[in-house]
This record gives sequence, structure tokens and C-alpha cells, in this order.
Amino acid sequence: MGSGRAESFSDGVFAVAITVLVFNLLPIGAGPLTHAVLLDAWPNYLAYVVSFLTIGIMWMNHHTMLAHISRVDRPLLVLNLFLLMGVVAIPFPTALVAEHLTGSNASGGQEAAVAYGLVMIAISVGYSAMWLYLAAHQDRLGSRRRVRTPRVSTVRFTLGLSGYAAGTLIAAYVSAVAALAIFGVLAVYYLFEHLPDPADDNDSGTGGTAGAQDGPAAS
Amino acid sequence: MGSGRAESFSDGVFAVAITVLVFNLLPIGAGPLTHAVLLDAWPNYLAYVVSFLTIGIMWMNHHTMLAHISRVDRPLLVLNLFLLMGVVAIPFPTALVAEHLTGSNASGGQEAAVAYGLVMIAISVGYSAMWLYLAAHQDRLGSRRRVRTPRVSTVRFTLGLSGYAAGTLIAAYVSAVAALAIFGVLAVYYLFEHLPDPADDNDSGTGGTAGAQDGPAAS
Amino acid sequence: MGSGRAESFSDGVFAVAITVLVFNLLPIGAGPLTHAVLLDAWPNYLAYVVSFLTIGIMWMNHHTMLAHISRVDRPLLVLNLFLLMGVVAIPFPTALVAEHLTGSNASGGQEAAVAYGLVMIAISVGYSAMWLYLAAHQDRLGSRRRVRTPRVSTVRFTLGLSGYAAGTLIAAYVSAVAALAIFGVLAVYYLFEHLPDPADDNDSGTGGTAGAQDGPAAS
Amino acid sequence: MGSGRAESFSDGVFAVAITVLVFNLLPIGAGPLTHAVLLDAWPNYLAYVVSFLTIGIMWMNHHTMLAHISRVDRPLLVLNLFLLMGVVAIPFPTALVAEHLTGSNASGGQEAAVAYGLVMIAISVGYSAMWLYLAAHQDRLGSRRRVRTPRVSTVRFTLGLSGYAAGTLIAAYVSAVAALAIFGVLAVYYLFEHLPDPADDNDSGTGGTAGAQDGPAAS
Repeated sequence: MGSGRAESFSDGVFAVAITVLVFNLLPIGAGPLTHAVLLDAWPNYLAYVVSFLTIGIMWMNHHTMLAHISRVDRPLLVLNLFLLMGVVAIPFPTALVAEHLTGSNASGGQEAAVAYGLVMIAISVGYSAMWLYLAAHQDRLGSRRRVRTPRVSTVRFTLGLSGYAAGTLIAAYVSAVAALAIFGVLAVYYLFEHLPDPADDNDSGTGGTAGAQDGPAAS
Repeated sequence: MGSGRAESFSDGVFAVAITVLVFNLLPIGAGPLTHAVLLDAWPNYLAYVVSFLTIGIMWMNHHTMLAHISRVDRPLLVLNLFLLMGVVAIPFPTALVAEHLTGSNASGGQEAAVAYGLVMIAISVGYSAMWLYLAAHQDRLGSRRRVRTPRVSTVRFTLGLSGYAAGTLIAAYVSAVAALAIFGVLAVYYLFEHLPDPADDNDSGTGGTAGAQDGPAAS
Repeated sequence: MGSGRAESFSDGVFAVAITVLVFNLLPIGAGPLTHAVLLDAWPNYLAYVVSFLTIGIMWMNHHTMLAHISRVDRPLLVLNLFLLMGVVAIPFPTALVAEHLTGSNASGGQEAAVAYGLVMIAISVGYSAMWLYLAAHQDRLGSRRRVRTPRVSTVRFTLGLSGYAAGTLIAAYVSAVAALAIFGVLAVYYLFEHLPDPADDNDSGTGGTAGAQDGPAAS
Repeated sequence: MGSGRAESFSDGVFAVAITVLVFNLLPIGAGPLTHAVLLDAWPNYLAYVVSFLTIGIMWMNHHTMLAHISRVDRPLLVLNLFLLMGVVAIPFPTALVAEHLTGSNASGGQEAAVAYGLVMIAISVGYSAMWLYLAAHQDRLGSRRRVRTPRVSTVRFTLGLSGYAAGTLIAAYVSAVAALAIFGVLAVYYLFEHLPDPADDNDSGTGGTAGAQDGPAAS
């Protein structure tokens, strides 16, 4: 299968999952509406922003990953499916955190943050598995250029996974807010630090003609 | 109509249907949140995973089926619509199973498993109908290569249909858990066993050039 | 703007709107689950099937309409937006009909059927407006072939609009069930009777080469 | 990254966000259904129409903006993500306005209108930021033609931003209905007044051939 339709399906799933996050906001103001009601819902807004950025960044990195190849095979599709299963689940722990961080339901804040961390760990494992499979089967998958940085990628994935694991442990035994701060920092980290983009190399490559040729291929 | 836009619409429907499954998770923890609340919701997680994989595999097989042709006609679009009608309904029996397998609502577990099985049977019939129509009108639909394995495909569809029918009967008269185990096994079966992929043949074909030519066609 | 991205956005809206219909099924079995509960929900299943087919057929006709042109302009996009506004609203009267046709909420069945009819009338007007605009600006929109059947199309649109208007009146003054039967018949009518497809002509055209050339353009 | 996949993901997000608006209509008629119940829900219908048109127009302008370039880089994707974060949130203040403008929950109408205005201001800032970045990095982003109208665009963005700010202030201190009227006027304004479309210029350009060549590029 060409990688195009796998990207198209994945794009759709990312787009729906990111939009489902708004359902965490909709119950606000179901009763009487005052300034206090809107302001007290700040954990909902914060959870919305963090999870929105997180899914958005995951979409970018997912694209960058698939941009390396031109074909997908059945094992890669199955790995991709497990990865998407984690991404689609994100609105669930997001809702838990939004509802239990403050207010009358505040007792379950740590449990909510642990659930958030566990989903993130599962997604990190999914990304690592997909990247390792992709790096190991470059020829079969019609790789657009040789992936030259396995060590850097390994460090990056290990760092993300360790960060989420540490955050989850802190959520379980110390503090929900501290754990969420770590998850926020990890989102910002992935915003700037990312997998090598095959298109980036082309821009600094042999010349304008090569860049123009590769442009559509990387799109 | 070219098959491209039918694939694009179907991809969108599959992507939304698979993401709707998260709504089965969202009500968890609406009240006080403890470890026990999160752990007792295991039927919700299990139903989420099984249905997610099921829809994902159906998407793969749907793609493989449409990859054989380059055009669609009105009857095929109508058959496709009936098939999608079953796929979109999956979150409904999934919610029934998740809510009634255990806990205070446990009395309806068998009814829920029967509903799940009936939806799966309807989808199996839909796939069979679409495949038979496609095989019977290959020239009209611009088939990319002659489908050479009607007998194998018939066996496969019959096997799947029989499995879901058996599971549904077991759900009705014996045990909901046994039926769900059968549905899980069927999902794993379809994960590995699938329709012939036109692109697979190209890879083992006459040479690299042919593979490169067919790459975009199969995407 | 090329018509491609307008189709892609519209496809997405159709795909989400058709999938939202499953939310009419999800509340079933929220309480204790018995065979009677599942069987008594037949208006929900019927409404799901009718609205699913209706939106699906609208998607097909929408595609056929846009297949005539290669460019869209701002007025056409605005007309398309009004059309989609009606399509996206379909799950609302569907839910009204499903909840109020039978059972303890049965008193509002006629009101629900009127609401269903009004949405359908709005959508019919939207289709007529878009088709008339498209027929009047064929050159500007890069029409792929001259639309030769304005009279037939006018008859068709008038017939559909009259049918929905009659059904709505019957819903208001006679019977909800009779009105819904008319809406079902109209869906089946549109299933077989449809706008001229530019690709159909090509298939019976001058030869295989012309068909092959137009194939991708019509996709 | 080519701009194609960024457009495809954004299209999906716009399509889902616009469809989520129907969830504001679904609770209507959950109880007994009479003509009065359907008519008293007019703020829901009005909010649905205004927000539907608003998101639809934003989609058009988003397309026009991205049609100027052929590549996207990481900063532009992040700006795009912030913009989409605002668009996806629109159903939330829409629900607030629909529920609190009239009826038993009417006390919070001004708070709801303020929330609506704040989301619109955030989106306006997002569009301005994206347009300024795009105008400043035209070469890097493979601009299809030189953006010649920075002053006109600046005026337009400033006008929109000022309008939403004024509406929000009026909502806070004067009247919710007056503020919503301003928001409606702004939607109509953006319906007719829009960013320069690169394809429009081509149509009035050197000739039919040039238009035909640029058609697919702008799609």
C-alpha cells in the first residue's frame, strides 16, 4: 500500500481526536452562568490547551515519520493502529484531569494524572516501536533517504519515555500538579525538538532544482 | 466516478467511527475518582481495544478491496454505504458490552453480546456482497489486475461469517464472555489473514520499474 | 480555488455528519438491558437507517454535482456552506423522530416529523440553488462538459421539493408515520434517480482513450 | 513539509469542528415535545447558524491563506495549531450563548457573549500572526506570487480584531444581544471581504492557458 492513504486515514483520526477535546468544555455553564463559574473551570481550559498541543505535535511528528517512506506494509499499519489507539484515548485522561484537579471532585487528582501519564507512556512506546520498525525496513518501505541518526532518535525516544514515566511516578506518590507541569514541559520539548525531516535536508541540498523535485514527494 | 473520492469519504467515516469509541471511556470517573473506579472499568477498556482493532482492520481490508479497482459505479457506492452503516454502528454494541458485562448492570451481558454479534454479521454480509459485486464487474470497474482467487476469498468470507454467527448463538444461549472471546479471536484472525493485495504482487513482479509505476496507483 | 479542496472539506463534513447519527443509538440500554429494551428501540434503528441512507445519497449527488466543474468561486462556496448547514443538522430531527415516535414521549411525533421535513426542504432548496448557480456559470467554473439537461434537472428538483413539502404537511395535519413513509420513499427514489454524471457519458463516448483521460479528472 | 498535508489535516479539523455544532441542537426535545418547545429553542438555531457560517468562512480564508504558499515549516505549523485551537473551541461559547440568552438560564447571557467574543479575538490574533509570518517568509515557503497588499491586509485584520474587541466590551457592560448582532455583522463582512486569492489574479491574467496551468496548483 502506498503511504498516502495511511497518512490520510491517520490525519482523519488525529483531526477527530483533537476536536473531541472540546467535549471537555461543553458541560461548563450547564447550570447558572457567572464569572466565577467560567473562571473556576481553569483546569478544563488548561487541560484543553495541553492536550490540544500534545495531539497537534504528535500529528506533526507522525507526518515527519511517514515522510521518510513511500510505502507501508501490514505490520507497519498494525503498529500505526496501536499508536492511534493511544492518541484517540487522550480525551479520556484529559477529562479526568480537568474534572478532578480542583473543586468538589478534587480527591482523585493524582489518579487522574497517573491515568494521563500511562496513556502518554503507551503512545511513546508506540512511536518508538513504529520508528524502530521503519528504520529496520527502509528498503522494503521505499525510504526516501537513508535514516542516518538512529542514535539521536534513540536518545530522543528514551528521553520522552523516561520523562513520562517519571511524571507518572510523581503523580502516583507526590503531587498531581507537579506531574502535570512535567507533562507540559515535555509537550514544549517535543514542540522544538523533533525527528529529522527529509524535506529539511533537501532545502539545504544540492540546489533549488532538487528542492523543487522533492517538495511534492514530501507533501 | 473514480475510486479516489469514494476512498476519501470512506476513510473519513472510518476515522470518525474509530474515534467515537472514546465516548465509551468518557463517563468513567464522572463521580468520585479512586483506583477502584479506574480498575473496575476494565470492560470499557477491553471493549475499546477490541472494537478499535476491529474497525482498524476493517479499514485495512476496505482499502485492499478498493485498491483492485480504479472506478466505482452507483451500485458499488450503495453497497459501500450499507457496509459503512454497519461500521458506524459498532460504537453502539461496544457501549452495550462495556456497560453490561460486569457491575450493577451485569444482567444484560448476553443481550449486549448478541447485539455485538448481529452488527458483525451485518458487516460480514456487507463485505461479502461488495467483494462479489467487485469480482463480477472487474472490467467495468477498471480492475488493476484480474482477481484470481475467488475460491479462497469465498472460504475466507464464509469462515468469518460462520464465526460471528456461532459467537452470536453462544452469546444468546451460553455465555457472553465466551462469545466475546470468539469475537476477539476473529479480530486477530483478520489481522493476519486478508484479501489479496494488488501491490503485494507488484513487489514480487518483473522488476523495480514496474513496482515504481504501480506504487502511486495502489496508494 | 480548484474544486478539489472544496470536495475534500465537504467530504469531511458529510463523513462526520453521517457518523454523528450513531449518537442516537448510544443512549439505548443505559439502564437495565433486556430483549424488550433492544426491540422497543426500533424507531431509533429505523431513523438511523433512513438518515444514514439519506446523507449517503446526498454525498453521492454532491459529488456528481461538483464533478461537472473544475473550479469553485466564492458564491458557490457560500451556497455549498448553506447546503452543508442543512446536512449537518440532520441528526437533530433524526433524534426527535427516534425519541417521540413511540413510547412515553410519543406525544410529539408529529412535531418531530415536521422538523424532519423542514430540514429536508431546506436541503432541497440548497441543492437547487447550487445546481442553478453551477448551470448558469459553467464557463467561469471550468465545466468539464456542457450540462445539457436543465429541464430534466428542474423536474427532478421540483419533484423532490414537492415530495418533502407534501410529507411535511401530512406530518403537521395527518400522521407522523405516513410522513416518514413518504420521506423513506423519497430516499429510495434519489438512490436510483440522480443527476447526470459526467463520467457516465465518457464511458459510452468515443473510445477507451477518452475514458482513460477523463477518469482521473472525474475522480 | 509540503502544504498539502497541513491543508488536509486543517480541513479535517474544520470539518469536525463545524459538525460538532449540531450537539448544541441534540438536547432540544429531550423531554415532552410541543411546538412551543421547538420554537423557544430559537437561540440554539441562531447560534448554530452564526457559528456554522463563522467556521465556514474561516475555512475559506484559511484555504486562501495557504494557497499562497507551497511549503510549510515548523513555526507555521505551530501557529496553525494555535489558530485551530481557537476554531475547535467555538462550539463551547456557542453552547453558552444558546443556553443563556433566554429562558430560565438567561441570567448569564452577558458572560456567555463575552466568552464568545474572547474566543473570536483569540482566533483573530491567530490569523494575523499566521498571515504576518507567511508574508515575512514568502521565499522560504515557496510563495506562488508576491503578496502585494500588506497594508490592505493589515487594515482588514485590524478592523476585524477591533470589531470583536468592541463587541466583547459591549457584551460585558451593555447588552448580550447587541454584542451578538455585532458578531453577526462581522461574519457577513468576512463573507464578502477577504484575503487576496492567488487564483483570482490568474483568471484575469495573461490568458486562458495560464489560468489552466495555475488551476491545479491553487486547488
